[in-house]
Amino acid sequence: MTVNYPYKRKQAPASNQKTVDFGKRGMSFEDDLERSNAFYLAADRAVIHKKPTPMQIVKVDYPARSAAKITEAYFIKPSTTDFNGVYKGRYIDFEAKETSNKSSFPLDNLHEHQVRHMEKSSQHGGIVFLLVKFSQLNEIYLLPNEKLKIFWLEYKEGNRRSIKKNEFATHGILILEGAYPRVDYLNAIDGLLEKT
Amino acid sequence: MTVNYPYKRKQAPASNQKTVDFGKRGMSFEDDLERSNAFYLAADRAVIHKKPTPMQIVKVDYPARSAAKITEAYFIKPSTTDFNGVYKGRYIDFEAKETSNKSSFPLDNLHEHQVRHMEKSSQHGGIVFLLVKFSQLNEIYLLPNEKLKIFWLEYKEGNRRSIKKNEFATHGILILEGAYPRVDYLNAIDGLLEKT
Repeated sequence: MTVNYPYKRKQAPASNQKTVDFGKRGMSFEDDLERSNAFYLAADRAVIHKKPTPMQIVKVDYPARSAAKITEAYFIKPSTTDFNGVYKGRYIDFEAKETSNKSSFPLDNLHEHQVRHMEKSSQHGGIVFLLVKFSQLNEIYLLPNEKLKIFWLEYKEGNRRSIKKNEFATHGILILEGAYPRVDYLNAIDGLLEKT
Repeated sequence: MTVNYPYKRKQAPASNQKTVDFGKRGMSFEDDLERSNAFYLAADRAVIHKKPTPMQIVKVDYPARSAAKITEAYFIKPSTTDFNGVYKGRYIDFEAKETSNKSSFPLDNLHEHQVRHMEKSSQHGGIVFLLVKFSQLNEIYLLPNEKLKIFWLEYKEGNRRSIKKNEFATHGILILEGAYPRVDYLNAIDGLLEKT
């Protein structure tokens, strides 16, 4: 969810310095996915978790009689994807992104490291995909790594800057938002498994 | 690696407040495992990573023209294990611990959450285990979840406080430290896979 990463927020403050209270952020696609994962876990369907955000810790204070307090740390670029786990005995690995763009997903939202990790995980037998939410349209697509890697290659060769929404529709699987779970992506994985 | 977690360090400072420089810590079992994973990745044998340490971020400063700086955060108890990934198409999940004890591994080094996560991951078809290094002896054992869960049950019932080294030897697999990789635990997994 690069869009929500503090180090590359679009709405970065123009003032000299600003402190953001992390408790006040709204519900994001990432939150919806974490709730869906909690639902899957409770329903005993799968064990899939979001990885913690990687940070480099520089300083930790140990105040007497209270918890260790990290006083200096920095966000670092993730070298893997955000989510992984196990479903029906298979390794599941995916990256989730949200875009406010209505017609396409800009590929500069992905890091080279992540795409390489996805290809490696796929080669070793994992079920690997990209989940993209077009937030203005409330449409979510699952794009299998096999298709993503072709689009990524075109991007690296300078022949593509984004993946169009109709390409997601053609090569991916549409996931409708529901109540329980919010984002039922396991059904889409079942669709992938049936094809193989 | 609970032993290395700042919030429960044995050598917590007695003084009122102290700052620890995280760049100056020595090589740990965890570091050895991360190197082994890097070796496996480069050799194209498996894709296994350590998860970032989970933290609760409270405050982030955005100084002008430089990276976002986290100025207040706290360590939170992990709800899953430290390591997971994919090997030979199988989901791999394990927790790694180091003990200075020479004859047994105290079970209070594990969290209830982690053990539950391990059992769930195993039920869904993952290869799940505990890796314990007896650091004074330089002996590392892989204990499959099937055995760990029995010992854990005895622990919860008050009939056991630790797992003896000879129990690791009987029910687990000894992993000798080498050069490349430092901790060749995939060979031990091969041993597990042959049995099933």
